Amino acid sequence: MAQKYVTRAEDYSKWYNELVYRADLAEHSDVRGCMVIKPYGYAIWEKMRDILDVKFKETGHSNAYFPLFIPKSYLSKEASHVDGFAKECAVVTHYRLKNAEDGSGVVVDPDSKLEEELIVRPTSETIIWNSYKNWIQSYRDLPILINQWANVVRWEMKTRLFLRTTEFLWQEGHTAHATKAEAIAETEQMLDVYADFAENYMAMPVIKGRKTANERFAGADDTLCIEAMMQDGKALQAGTSHFLGQNFAKAFEVKFADKEGKLDYVWATSWGVSTRLMGALIMTHSDDEGLVLPPALAPIQVVAVPIYRTDEELAAISEKMAELSKKLKAKGISFKYDDDENRRPGWKFAEYESKGVPVRVAMGPRDLENGKAEIARRDNKTKEVVDFDGLENHIEQLLADIQSNLLARAKAFRLENTREIDSYDEFKKEIDKGGFFLAHWDGTSETEERIKEETKATIRCIALDRKEEAGVCMVTGKPSAGRVIFAKAY
Amino acid sequence: MAQKYVTRAEDYSKWYNELVYRADLAEHSDVRGCMVIKPYGYAIWEKMRDILDVKFKETGHSNAYFPLFIPKSYLSKEASHVDGFAKECAVVTHYRLKNAEDGSGVVVDPDSKLEEELIVRPTSETIIWNSYKNWIQSYRDLPILINQWANVVRWEMKTRLFLRTTEFLWQEGHTAHATKAEAIAETEQMLDVYADFAENYMAMPVIKGRKTANERFAGADDTLCIEAMMQDGKALQAGTSHFLGQNFAKAFEVKFADKEGKLDYVWATSWGVSTRLMGALIMTHSDDEGLVLPPALAPIQVVAVPIYRTDEELAAISEKMAELSKKLKAKGISFKYDDDENRRPGWKFAEYESKGVPVRVAMGPRDLENGKAEIARRDNKTKEVVDFDGLENHIEQLLADIQSNLLARAKAFRLENTREIDSYDEFKKEIDKGGFFLAHWDGTSETEERIKEETKATIRCIALDRKEEAGVCMVTGKPSAGRVIFAKAY
Repeated sequence: MAQKYVTRAEDYSKWYNELVYRADLAEHSDVRGCMVIKPYGYAIWEKMRDILDVKFKETGHSNAYFPLFIPKSYLSKEASHVDGFAKECAVVTHYRLKNAEDGSGVVVDPDSKLEEELIVRPTSETIIWNSYKNWIQSYRDLPILINQWANVVRWEMKTRLFLRTTEFLWQEGHTAHATKAEAIAETEQMLDVYADFAENYMAMPVIKGRKTANERFAGADDTLCIEAMMQDGKALQAGTSHFLGQNFAKAFEVKFADKEGKLDYVWATSWGVSTRLMGALIMTHSDDEGLVLPPALAPIQVVAVPIYRTDEELAAISEKMAELSKKLKAKGISFKYDDDENRRPGWKFAEYESKGVPVRVAMGPRDLENGKAEIARRDNKTKEVVDFDGLENHIEQLLADIQSNLLARAKAFRLENTREIDSYDEFKKEIDKGGFFLAHWDGTSETEERIKEETKATIRCIALDRKEEAGVCMVTGKPSAGRVIFAKAY
Repeated sequence: MAQKYVTRAEDYSKWYNELVYRADLAEHSDVRGCMVIKPYGYAIWEKMRDILDVKFKETGHSNAYFPLFIPKSYLSKEASHVDGFAKECAVVTHYRLKNAEDGSGVVVDPDSKLEEELIVRPTSETIIWNSYKNWIQSYRDLPILINQWANVVRWEMKTRLFLRTTEFLWQEGHTAHATKAEAIAETEQMLDVYADFAENYMAMPVIKGRKTANERFAGADDTLCIEAMMQDGKALQAGTSHFLGQNFAKAFEVKFADKEGKLDYVWATSWGVSTRLMGALIMTHSDDEGLVLPPALAPIQVVAVPIYRTDEELAAISEKMAELSKKLKAKGISFKYDDDENRRPGWKFAEYESKGVPVRVAMGPRDLENGKAEIARRDNKTKEVVDFDGLENHIEQLLADIQSNLLARAKAFRLENTREIDSYDEFKKEIDKGGFFLAHWDGTSETEERIKEETKATIRCIALDRKEEAGVCMVTGKPSAGRVIFAKAY
């Protein structure tokens, strides 16, 4: 009998954890807070990475690689950065082990103590700007447009697979510019790249916005973000793009000579998305039967399962499927034919449902006879029997439909769960139900903190396209120029 | 005036270091032994990675990702592995920093000491087999064919860019099999993948061989390798593929039930290549003018430089080059047109020569008038004036010629610098001149060690295709079944 899984309605958080295992995406390792990303999960991440990488290159960026280790003193160079990042991190203090004298294994050799401890990078601004210092003399050396795909470590106390892990994979862009305007334009451009990726590949609608001072990146003058709504109504910050002003240039003394020979500090940005996107993807679309994947990110877009009793039937169906495989391949559609004789069709159906394969083709002897096949959509679980002739075109269209349906469905869900609210009393009652709350706020950190303390909700962002409208703060009654988005968040 | 660089003949080692900087491939970071891989160097590594990744997938492997950190005790589980790897490594002992009481910055928080230290992975057999333990119950779970692209850290005392760095990038395949024969076949298959890549993409001839017990991977029953000869006659181990027997399965208690339900330990392999290949690539082909790249790995395969005095001339040449760009792109050939007006053609010629761009196209007003272009090959520095019509075909052929010429040249060099030797006295005199020495050896570790001590030469490998021939050890006079390859090595 199939294992019984908890439903979203029963326990959303448990449903998520079970799903990550059920779809074979990742698992906890024995190393505290670190995960193992399993082949199927990694295949989805690879697709994300490859698509983003093309977009980064199209916008003029190159990849490079900087050291994993950051000397402790670097972190202290940018005052607010050290407060944000130097606290919970992995510290390398020694560089050698030796055999224990009692033969019990290996122990740290006390003679190998490092003069200065090394921090496993929680983010790379400091080590990168320490290099840029040597790369930049004049305006001719600018802009520098570099991205890095890397692992980073933040010593999280409470971890969840993909959403918050001690080690995670990400990309971090680090750019250097001659002018403030150019750096701001870069910050905005990369936010657009992220938003485009989220909507058109992940089928996940996002709100582009600006973080309040409280939620800003440690060391940034301005943090832009994309915020998504999960199926439990919680917000998830899916990507950030930071305008760093001249903060890191000043911390690392990076100046350039302009055309007139005048020296000025360099302007900077940084921007990143991580394996957290995997968590966002899962929680945006999946259902009680398992993972639901948008076709653009599915490692297997179409799976076919033969239904047969005799070897002759199998051979005839297999021949048809080889034909289909060829036609789909020509269209760039990934296809798996699962003729494993050790598993029954019903088992296979459940398996690929769990794994979120967008389209399933089944063919039995009667279908074969009639020149038909049964097609099942993963997104809305509808089935239809269609002609085998031209099936590849039908599937191609179906994949496009599924991709747009997932986005539309997520958009509709977000709309249903977004509301304006003007009373703080009502806000306190409603916030636990989840969703985005558009409310007036007086613009002070004090009020923001009070709301956070009293409700656990935070200002997710000030939407870039928000309507400017005069109002009064729902808490203090002070004037406000427009609504901001409150929500509980991952 | 152009900077004067040292030549290979003057100082091979210094030539290498200068070249890595000159071609803008990588640089030392301020973190001891760690390098920064710069965009141009990383672009070459990306090409290597992408080509290998396709080959790994074609041979049935999937990518996954395992934790960066390994609990100290894991390393001790496989006895010879711990001796090989647990010694010089980065040890994480704490997980928090705090503000120093004297306000001088941040210090390690003594309260954050880890119960068990974590080692930054020097290689991942232990952490991976600790996972496989939970993934494998029966023969149905086998084989597991996984590869990981990752950074690893080995605390090297003496480092050189790409060749030996504290942190480096690599891939590590880790497979699990039901039978010894299958694991051995996998070990051999991956060696073939590496050899094919080295010869057909890097244009670097390699000898496939077997390591002696002394040079075997710590924890392997058998280590296969590919060995290449650098231009100074030294050997470079470019890749290894290990048959691990049941050693790690035993260390981590990984058993599987076969079809009859009988329990046995799982058989294993691991195999890897690293950013060290960048060093091998550089030292196989490059010359005193800079980097020489095989077209298959060149980020820019063709560069074009306009030579002009008037804006009209530039416009006319640019139009032609746009045409060429389109035609080359259609053939999948990467092309850069450098019309930067701040640099003179001579500067550009030197720059792209330094960077190893295989083909350079130059066009001036007279070429334009005559329907010609000047083509320069980077590999042999010949130039010719050819018709602009059909230039894309000419270039396509030229790139193929360069690719095969580089391999042929490197093969000829190796042949010239490989000799049989029977006298140990002569060996001691000749070994410093560099090259591969084919000598009889009595098969004992003692003799091998004595030779290493007295000459610094090691047995690079026992070639898989060596001729079996009876002989006597050049040192001890004891019987030998065939010659082995001695050389000094990187």
